Amino acid sequence: MPEFRTVRGMRDFLPDEARIMKYVESKARGVAELYGYKEVMTPLVESYELLATKAGEEVRLRMFSFKDLGGRMIALRPEFTPSIARLVATTLRNEPKPFRLFCLGSLYRYDEPQRGRYREFWQSDFELVGSDKPEADAEIVLLTNSLMNGAGLKNCVFKVGHVGVIRGVLSEEKLEDKVQNAVLQLMDKKQYEDALRLVKDSGISEKCLALLQNLVNLKGNDVFEITKKMKEHVGHYEKAMAAADNLSSILRLIVESGCKIEMRVEAGFARGLEYYTGMIFEVYVPELDVALSGGGRYDKLVELFGGESTPAVGVANGIDRIMLAMQEQKVKLDEAGEKRVVVISVGEETKAEALRISCMLRNSNITVEFEVMGRKMAKALEDADRRKMDCAVIVGKRELEQGAVVLKDLKKREQTTVGIAELAKTIRG
Amino acid sequence: MPEFRTVRGMRDFLPDEARIMKYVESKARGVAELYGYKEVMTPLVESYELLATKAGEEVRLRMFSFKDLGGRMIALRPEFTPSIARLVATTLRNEPKPFRLFCLGSLYRYDEPQRGRYREFWQSDFELVGSDKPEADAEIVLLTNSLMNGAGLKNCVFKVGHVGVIRGVLSEEKLEDKVQNAVLQLMDKKQYEDALRLVKDSGISEKCLALLQNLVNLKGNDVFEITKKMKEHVGHYEKAMAAADNLSSILRLIVESGCKIEMRVEAGFARGLEYYTGMIFEVYVPELDVALSGGGRYDKLVELFGGESTPAVGVANGIDRIMLAMQEQKVKLDEAGEKRVVVISVGEETKAEALRISCMLRNSNITVEFEVMGRKMAKALEDADRRKMDCAVIVGKRELEQGAVVLKDLKKREQTTVGIAELAKTIRG
Repeated sequence: MPEFRTVRGMRDFLPDEARIMKYVESKARGVAELYGYKEVMTPLVESYELLATKAGEEVRLRMFSFKDLGGRMIALRPEFTPSIARLVATTLRNEPKPFRLFCLGSLYRYDEPQRGRYREFWQSDFELVGSDKPEADAEIVLLTNSLMNGAGLKNCVFKVGHVGVIRGVLSEEKLEDKVQNAVLQLMDKKQYEDALRLVKDSGISEKCLALLQNLVNLKGNDVFEITKKMKEHVGHYEKAMAAADNLSSILRLIVESGCKIEMRVEAGFARGLEYYTGMIFEVYVPELDVALSGGGRYDKLVELFGGESTPAVGVANGIDRIMLAMQEQKVKLDEAGEKRVVVISVGEETKAEALRISCMLRNSNITVEFEVMGRKMAKALEDADRRKMDCAVIVGKRELEQGAVVLKDLKKREQTTVGIAELAKTIRG
Repeated sequence: MPEFRTVRGMRDFLPDEARIMKYVESKARGVAELYGYKEVMTPLVESYELLATKAGEEVRLRMFSFKDLGGRMIALRPEFTPSIARLVATTLRNEPKPFRLFCLGSLYRYDEPQRGRYREFWQSDFELVGSDKPEADAEIVLLTNSLMNGAGLKNCVFKVGHVGVIRGVLSEEKLEDKVQNAVLQLMDKKQYEDALRLVKDSGISEKCLALLQNLVNLKGNDVFEITKKMKEHVGHYEKAMAAADNLSSILRLIVESGCKIEMRVEAGFARGLEYYTGMIFEVYVPELDVALSGGGRYDKLVELFGGESTPAVGVANGIDRIMLAMQEQKVKLDEAGEKRVVVISVGEETKAEALRISCMLRNSNITVEFEVMGRKMAKALEDADRRKMDCAVIVGKRELEQGAVVLKDLKKREQTTVGIAELAKTIRG
């Protein structure tokens, strides 16, 4: 028989890894709670049509898509946004704005497996739907920062930009949307030369090309200085100017909120997905070259899914990558260190009583592993040591007749006889 | 544009439903913690070969299966057990026994959608691997009961049986495994007449047929009485007798453990999946006619996946069905009722300060929704009422100059001016 394996690009999470994953998930839920975001769950399988509607070409080609038994094209979700947009455009259509929505789960793409990139990966998404104000953009950045802090990550850098600046220039220069998309996708891949060549081939003036080159080079950590220069560059272009103004309002709110976030503004920053319309950002740590999180404003998305025109801003946090960053930074999880107890019955006839005591301890919220291998006492204690249990409760006939058991502290190597009624309290210490 | 819909048999969970789902999940994780079960996560997509290896025909035909880009048949998992068996047979092969494994997630089957039956559904699985002792079987039943209690469910009935009793009789009567499987599958569907006809057609004696008929009729809540009768019936059949003995040991441990579990033993009880080898059980509430949980012993499964012969017992809990039962029984969730606060800036110029105060409150673990719609004060307060917020923090220029804000209690309709330094404490009350 061949050895069974996981499918290419998919992984098992053994207990130590699953624990970190669940830890990050609980931190994300904590942030959602603190900022008033309500969790929703959408199906993992959606119609191909829905998922393909506004995905970039790149994502569309990498979807796990197939026909269902009814012959209809369906696919595993490659991102959360289409499902959220569907919800907003249909079920939640008449709910008063804003919504703050949170979702968390696995996503699927045929990516070439590599460090930090898997075919099954996890994200937590936060979406603030209904506000076009800069404080909404600021909130999404702030909560992303809270999540990074919650996960114990240090030295995060938020790379921030605004798709409206470059798009503003290009659209006032009458470049078609299709060409604009292609230009931004090249920029997203940092293929700036190709991007500028494409612009040039579209017959744009040398002066405008020089301006774009300046924008691409404009980046830095002094966010107010950079946005000031951005405005100087694009002064003639009304839409680009409005975008730069919007970006600087958002950045001012973030800086003045007093949350210490290291930001780096890049005027030539673009993101691969076509639906962004405003501020965009990504989060990096020095130890990894992939972004941990990415988000931004997408005011036209809900319309595309048949809903009313609805401004929205959101972020997707890559949970696998946050886990990887935590490993790199050797983050210690702040978990409650509950005592772990093994209960061992000395003989066959005391087993039921040992089970009863186990139930009692669990009712007092103590973790109990019951000895189920029928091992002799010495072996059972050896095993408990190996599993790093804190103490062993030994249930024997003689002590039971006195309403007691033997409690063995496996760290201190001491043992005492304890009345069953006091057992939970004694273990707690 | 057509309105986008969820795929047939798949559902969205809006915040109220998602909250209950996450509540049940957290209860399941709590039980795992208390009993020492470690969470593992396996991929949602597995090779078709793995998933089909030991699924009954019924499950095999209902899998969401398709070819991946590399032309390999893959499928969405219809149950957790094959993935767990794969783990046990490969990665965990050399780990010392027993393992206590827990997993939780969504599963996929083309079932005809109906109440309590969906094409995307959730389970929490507990698997105790490595012990063939009755206390292992008892533990799985006890922890399932803890989960039902944790979810707040009342009047649960555990239907219990043992596939070894009927199989013991049939195999000593030299019925082929294939016919045995067919008989048990018919019994699982309560098609007892068809099952007995199939046995009869295999040329079995009238006497044995009468015995099987007696077993099928043998059921009741007095578990010791029923197992006693079971033993009287199958006395001549050695394997069936051993199975009945095993069942009565398990039941004795459960009853004597003192956990109050309502059990009903049925000698003719079978479960659809072929891999069960010993005790089996299902959990019901009076309000629903589908099982909330199902489990049992499957000692030969790991071998089938290329591992060493490994005894194991486990349970799968249907989270959707537990949720449905909770709704039917009108269970109230025992959640911490944290105060919810809205922070509203009076004017444009105090927005950043209002954001700063929001961050400060969240750092004190208070849920804050920031007003992001640019509404006038009266509208913003009206909205906060509609959203049932507990209080509003109103950030205005005049109070800020005194290092203070206005705190409005939205339940008592009172407002006071509070120093920013005391704000978190005042809100907590």
